[in-house]
Amino acid sequence: MTDFLDDLRQRLPAMRLLTDEGDRESYRRDETVHFEPGLPLAVALPSSTDEVAEIMRLATSHRVPVVPRGAGSGLSGGSAGVEGALTIVLTRMNAILEIDHGNLVAVVQPGVINADLKTAVAQEGLFYAPDPASYEFCTIGGNIGTNAGGLCCVKYGVTRDAILSLEVVLVDGRVIRTGGRNVKDVAGYSLTHLFVGSQGTLGIVTEATVRLRPAPPPKRTMLAFFPTLESAGRAVAAMTAAGLEPCTLELMDRTVIGAVDDWHALGLDRSAAALLLIESDRPGSAAGDELAAGEAACTDWGATSVVRATDPTEADWLRQVRRLAFRAMERFGVARMEDVGAPRSLLPELLSAIQRIAAAHEVRCGTFGHAGDGNLHPTFVWDRGDAEAEERVQAACEELYRAAIAMGGTVTGEHGIGAARRDFLELQRGADAVAVMRSIKTALDPLNILNPGKVL
Amino acid sequence: MTDFLDDLRQRLPAMRLLTDEGDRESYRRDETVHFEPGLPLAVALPSSTDEVAEIMRLATSHRVPVVPRGAGSGLSGGSAGVEGALTIVLTRMNAILEIDHGNLVAVVQPGVINADLKTAVAQEGLFYAPDPASYEFCTIGGNIGTNAGGLCCVKYGVTRDAILSLEVVLVDGRVIRTGGRNVKDVAGYSLTHLFVGSQGTLGIVTEATVRLRPAPPPKRTMLAFFPTLESAGRAVAAMTAAGLEPCTLELMDRTVIGAVDDWHALGLDRSAAALLLIESDRPGSAAGDELAAGEAACTDWGATSVVRATDPTEADWLRQVRRLAFRAMERFGVARMEDVGAPRSLLPELLSAIQRIAAAHEVRCGTFGHAGDGNLHPTFVWDRGDAEAEERVQAACEELYRAAIAMGGTVTGEHGIGAARRDFLELQRGADAVAVMRSIKTALDPLNILNPGKVL
Repeated sequence: MTDFLDDLRQRLPAMRLLTDEGDRESYRRDETVHFEPGLPLAVALPSSTDEVAEIMRLATSHRVPVVPRGAGSGLSGGSAGVEGALTIVLTRMNAILEIDHGNLVAVVQPGVINADLKTAVAQEGLFYAPDPASYEFCTIGGNIGTNAGGLCCVKYGVTRDAILSLEVVLVDGRVIRTGGRNVKDVAGYSLTHLFVGSQGTLGIVTEATVRLRPAPPPKRTMLAFFPTLESAGRAVAAMTAAGLEPCTLELMDRTVIGAVDDWHALGLDRSAAALLLIESDRPGSAAGDELAAGEAACTDWGATSVVRATDPTEADWLRQVRRLAFRAMERFGVARMEDVGAPRSLLPELLSAIQRIAAAHEVRCGTFGHAGDGNLHPTFVWDRGDAEAEERVQAACEELYRAAIAMGGTVTGEHGIGAARRDFLELQRGADAVAVMRSIKTALDPLNILNPGKVL
Repeated sequence: MTDFLDDLRQRLPAMRLLTDEGDRESYRRDETVHFEPGLPLAVALPSSTDEVAEIMRLATSHRVPVVPRGAGSGLSGGSAGVEGALTIVLTRMNAILEIDHGNLVAVVQPGVINADLKTAVAQEGLFYAPDPASYEFCTIGGNIGTNAGGLCCVKYGVTRDAILSLEVVLVDGRVIRTGGRNVKDVAGYSLTHLFVGSQGTLGIVTEATVRLRPAPPPKRTMLAFFPTLESAGRAVAAMTAAGLEPCTLELMDRTVIGAVDDWHALGLDRSAAALLLIESDRPGSAAGDELAAGEAACTDWGATSVVRATDPTEADWLRQVRRLAFRAMERFGVARMEDVGAPRSLLPELLSAIQRIAAAHEVRCGTFGHAGDGNLHPTFVWDRGDAEAEERVQAACEELYRAAIAMGGTVTGEHGIGAARRDFLELQRGADAVAVMRSIKTALDPLNILNPGKVL
């Protein structure tokens, strides 16, 4: 191991390499509360693809595992430390290399913050769609690793849909480029789509060509309050069936509404069992028409009140309600955010499974999430240090995973299997499908040094 | 080999198995004119996943290669015969198993004709987007194999974007399911995206869950005629830059305009160097607004005339012009349709490269295609039996591939590498990227019996 670090220092003298225990400790965790990671051997902060390639040549030659990492905001333990592994932090590679109007793409390094990319392209009248809740601090590289989602996926798709090409450093230091700027291109297997979502287990992304769109019109925004979770779920299903394409279709349950209102006294209807945040960015009068159709679906299914923003300030205020959800839950103690999903039509069943399981295990849980995609974030809270409560939460989560799988759903809609959900991958995908994934992993990383113990 | 066929007959007595030379001969070719395929050993027409799985168990045990095939309408030799291989024709597995409104998906067998799926879902107010030109006879399984495109990709994406889940028979007969009905799901590697476009070299697709959309509003349709190819190309670029999202944005050059008009006497402006077919399916008045913006871009770039359809019959007549393009070129002799692409902004450069190369090699060429995607179908024609002309065409195509690659483009936008373009895969993707593809192929098909000699 010392040989490896000596070699790193010798071959890459200009690269920042942290070996103090305090520094290593600060890169041990990501944002996943329910998983105990290892302590990195050291932390490298490369500044170029060449440096990453050299790291991988040495890592392969010394058989030292590596953990690629962006902002560390992940919620699956995907970039959490592995004992004895080198953590490679890509935040210094944070240049927006090009914004290409003619082809509606941008070329970025992996350490670019999602919000910085959004801002840069917005200044040119363009739009980068993926918007995970952490967009103000998460990196595009991390978004690619997890195939991150967000609020506007319901209309604009997930990160994978926004990636045209990647530069990837392979385990032995070779550098490949997948894809290009062609929107249609069927030359060979789609490695781009395979690397997206592989959480650094197949290679290290050092550059990405992302798709942009013309900036959509300003959003029209609405909140609807419901007497039961079931009625909110049915309203969502009715909107899908009616062919609406809202650019936001989010849900919060009573616990989360109360938590947000406790914190910011926004005057929300605390008697409601659920609220939906619905937005449209259709052009011209079509946005108002879409919200009107959404409102009709809500009242048909029993919404007790509907609030439409009349100006951008009011819209921002309504949006704020949803943005505060997780932080509001964190005020109750340790907050473990889960990420289950189901086919959209089964949203009411998924909501009711969450309620039932939380009650059965006597755990405190508030649910919010991407109702239009069938992807929810039940968030379990307990007092720090209450090991018994934490165990009950663990049991509840495992039951919830099984319930989601039983309804054809998923244990993770946008956070990733990472280290935290590995035990459930085979249950969801089947042993033979996982065997195929494993054979691909072995083909690309025969020594198992790329983020070992993650995903598979 | 005889043992293999005997075993097939014994284990699958009810399955149709063709061994007569005439029958085998009729499955030798697909629609690719410039490639000489092998004669199948035999042709199997299974009716179920179980039969396909049994075929693959026997094929693996006897080391007999297989070629999966749909309608045989491919243009890359992907389903063309391989000497000594069993061709597996999936056209009998042609059931639409389910249309699920609540989740906007359909579950289909691979032999379903694209147009039949479109019709079935349209009757329920839904829309299956991918529309290759061959949609009236090509199969969904073939579309998945090639990641087929079509006219409406420019707005609605390619086949890969429309697939949520696959049932795949692996080389040894194991059956896996990738994905599900969840629109967001990040559990493990995305095998769905990998299998789509792999042309039967990694497994055999026996079922697919495809995404549907609410049926869009009726299209508004327009033709614009241009004095030069350059001006048409610039108009397309201007529309992209202006943020228009036409659902059709097709181009035809002077040769193709003349060929179509010769055949059907539609009264087209034969003095034009190019025409664009532009359609919008935006809701309400937005469609008219979008066409008006498109017309402005066309006239800004020098369009000499613009024709807007005033009713559905007239729109169909305008669309007909583009639909006749390839068949009109076939009237000149043998017609070899190519499939090059470039980043959209380089459409004028790609058009001019095609003109230059066809002239330099003294070959007759008409170009039409998906201008909005930067994906063109230069179609070379020569007299049947004129071997010298055919050689000049081959040389022109190879130069064209190199030109497309040099501008960051692709040798195939939607038809596939198949057997016909293998020599250029490495030039486009790079040796290391192709080595990664090959390692995946070896991991999934170590004996190289799944469609050998295709793609890689």
